[in-house]
Amino acid sequence: MPDRDLILNAFLMVPGHHAAAWRHPLSTPERTLDLDYYAGIARTAEAAKIDSLFLADGLSSGRRGGARGGLEPLTLLSSLAAVTERIGLIATASTTFNDPYNLARAFASLDHLSGGRAGWNIVTSADTEAAANFSREAVAHEARYRRAHEFLEVATGLWDSWEDDARILDKAAGRPVDGDKVHELNHVGAHFQVRGPLNAPRPPQGHPLLVQAGSSEDGKDFAAHWAEAIFTAQQTIEDARAFYADVKARVAAAGRDPDAVKILPGLSPFIGSTEAEAHAVQSELDDLAVPTDGVPTQVWRQLGTVDLTQFPLDEPVPLHLLPDETDVQGNRSRFALIVSLARRERLTVRQLLRRLAGARGHFTFAGTPEQVADLIEDWFTHGAADGFNIMPPLYPSQFEIFLEHVVPILQRRGLFHTEYRGRTLREHYGLDRPANRFARPRELAA
Amino acid sequence: MPDRDLILNAFLMVPGHHAAAWRHPLSTPERTLDLDYYAGIARTAEAAKIDSLFLADGLSSGRRGGARGGLEPLTLLSSLAAVTERIGLIATASTTFNDPYNLARAFASLDHLSGGRAGWNIVTSADTEAAANFSREAVAHEARYRRAHEFLEVATGLWDSWEDDARILDKAAGRPVDGDKVHELNHVGAHFQVRGPLNAPRPPQGHPLLVQAGSSEDGKDFAAHWAEAIFTAQQTIEDARAFYADVKARVAAAGRDPDAVKILPGLSPFIGSTEAEAHAVQSELDDLAVPTDGVPTQVWRQLGTVDLTQFPLDEPVPLHLLPDETDVQGNRSRFALIVSLARRERLTVRQLLRRLAGARGHFTFAGTPEQVADLIEDWFTHGAADGFNIMPPLYPSQFEIFLEHVVPILQRRGLFHTEYRGRTLREHYGLDRPANRFARPRELAA
Repeated sequence: MPDRDLILNAFLMVPGHHAAAWRHPLSTPERTLDLDYYAGIARTAEAAKIDSLFLADGLSSGRRGGARGGLEPLTLLSSLAAVTERIGLIATASTTFNDPYNLARAFASLDHLSGGRAGWNIVTSADTEAAANFSREAVAHEARYRRAHEFLEVATGLWDSWEDDARILDKAAGRPVDGDKVHELNHVGAHFQVRGPLNAPRPPQGHPLLVQAGSSEDGKDFAAHWAEAIFTAQQTIEDARAFYADVKARVAAAGRDPDAVKILPGLSPFIGSTEAEAHAVQSELDDLAVPTDGVPTQVWRQLGTVDLTQFPLDEPVPLHLLPDETDVQGNRSRFALIVSLARRERLTVRQLLRRLAGARGHFTFAGTPEQVADLIEDWFTHGAADGFNIMPPLYPSQFEIFLEHVVPILQRRGLFHTEYRGRTLREHYGLDRPANRFARPRELAA
Repeated sequence: MPDRDLILNAFLMVPGHHAAAWRHPLSTPERTLDLDYYAGIARTAEAAKIDSLFLADGLSSGRRGGARGGLEPLTLLSSLAAVTERIGLIATASTTFNDPYNLARAFASLDHLSGGRAGWNIVTSADTEAAANFSREAVAHEARYRRAHEFLEVATGLWDSWEDDARILDKAAGRPVDGDKVHELNHVGAHFQVRGPLNAPRPPQGHPLLVQAGSSEDGKDFAAHWAEAIFTAQQTIEDARAFYADVKARVAAAGRDPDAVKILPGLSPFIGSTEAEAHAVQSELDDLAVPTDGVPTQVWRQLGTVDLTQFPLDEPVPLHLLPDETDVQGNRSRFALIVSLARRERLTVRQLLRRLAGARGHFTFAGTPEQVADLIEDWFTHGAADGFNIMPPLYPSQFEIFLEHVVPILQRRGLFHTEYRGRTLREHYGLDRPANRFARPRELAA
């Protein structure tokens, strides 16, 4: 039994990660704009001691806002902060189409409101449709990451601009704040000029938990510098172990403790009381993703710049006709993963499309609760994962089955806690509270 | 008894509107980062059928973030949406330092999460300190309003980009959305180019309630076009009546129904069971705002570009040394109001500073519950107000006294409702749900 504690994050994509989840008889897509629906899921997850909830996001219409609702992550998680007490709340926000002062403030606010439970999934936006909503052309891959680096410099600086003990509230002396402990940032960079300080005290966690999900070369370098948790998509334990070792080495090379970065592969489990039942759950959903003409009309028919449905559906994916990875401006690592999946399993176009409906290239697995627990234990104890980003194909039913039947097995095996390890998201993830850059000289001088 | 229903908005500035509120023995500034503190106030207001809560905001350190907490309005109100059911939630957000797509989305999200209770207090930002946090120089008065107009064109267009019945969720046909009812905006303007559609369905209210508070010429013109409610600062019923008549005339001139814009002057009531007790409440707070050296160290020592404390404290305010109103880049209407107050009452510098500590130039009134109710009735029934923006000098105690002792008098007099008039903020304010610009041609064709 390892002395590490498994981390479980619930990736809250409603009404389920499967592209056809909304069509399932148990699905209630009409509730995806309803706070009570999310509150119910959050409270159920908290009762099972799940470490965190995570909301993805996009800034163009695409598939969002239809069956999925399209609620903005920071506002939705702020609502959920009010109806939960312990579970972490991780919101996706883009460094490409936000401003660091506003975003740092919003995350500081969520961290205060939730008592230290905020996390930020940092993304850069390649989406040209999104750019057209922000008076912009598309932004090149490398430029996006340069801006993201500077964005993080500014955001972390703003969170540090108030020392932890700056707010003294001395009524007798009439001094609300110790002005010597509130600092200007005076950041002057290529993308931003920000004087600071932030107009809110330092967040309870120091900095909200920093999460990252890009797995391209730029993405991994960014993660090595900034990330404290990484959501990744891996299809096999071998690939996951290689990714895990690669990232931990990069973190060490960046001068950080490799254990201070937690790696959570995505896992979309289709669970049944027998293996056959689990496969039936998956097949039922897969069938709903493919209309009568046989062409999936949902998401992920596009691969890089190529529409897969232009090829003969029942012939192998024509790998030689796909663009080169380095020509992809969007999600490069996901592109590479999908191409590698098609190559390894020699999939036809139809088979690949069907597979992508499951979880957009994330690892899908159909099995019994024991089998799902075995898989989690195997990856967790063999250098492939510090935890998992659980992506239920269908909310809330498949999520509830995971909580009721898989989590107790993991607890009995001593892999997963039976009580929260602390009050804050950082404590749940076993991560330290960051030092304040402005307070250091004083500490050294003392 | 008028057949109009009085509107009461609670201006939630904690721990109170008085600059020295945080120093009062009944004040708990240590709770101003604590969600439960705000939830308690919100629930108390809702129990008294108060129509809405309103949060102001600023984007520089200034006085915010000290005793007041500094929580960001949209995140805080999203939290409060989860612990209330009926009360409206009005957040301030700047058109100068935000992006229309992100902000339209956040307000749409709050409106969905709250079941149609979101309002947006639209401000432009003159603050040069804020500009320095956003990689910008200060923005001139007129330019700010031009950007604000275009910002509103885009935001309202994005809210309309989904028709009300666009989300069909037809499971059998596999059609989540009627694509013919989701529209691109294709806005191309001087400040913004926004393709749309928004990535979220139309808000329950159609558009969140649009509130505005600037009372300069530019501000009033903006309000005549866009505002559905106006927060204003008026010191006398005569000034309030003149403002009321002026704005309603401008609204009519802009081709709108004057009754579709509600005018709410600010009122900061110091309430005691006797007049003497009420004055004692005010004096106790005023005394706390003036340290032993006699110079108020709190806010509002600055008037335009001039620091008032440079003048002899016990001589009349030297009106001839103040800048001309048209040279003021910040809050022009407030500047004019304060200068007029100093002139009318022939105040010394010390007296003016003391007066400003009360509610920053808003109307303060000390009296019994009956006297406060009389004042409200007088203004409401004599063409000076459609309701009031209540600014308790001290939260929660003075607010609770208002709710427990003034509101029942207003109800007994038939001025204020004893039950909410509807489910949405628009219904509370007696305002129609806006038509969708994209749906109109279809309706005409039908």
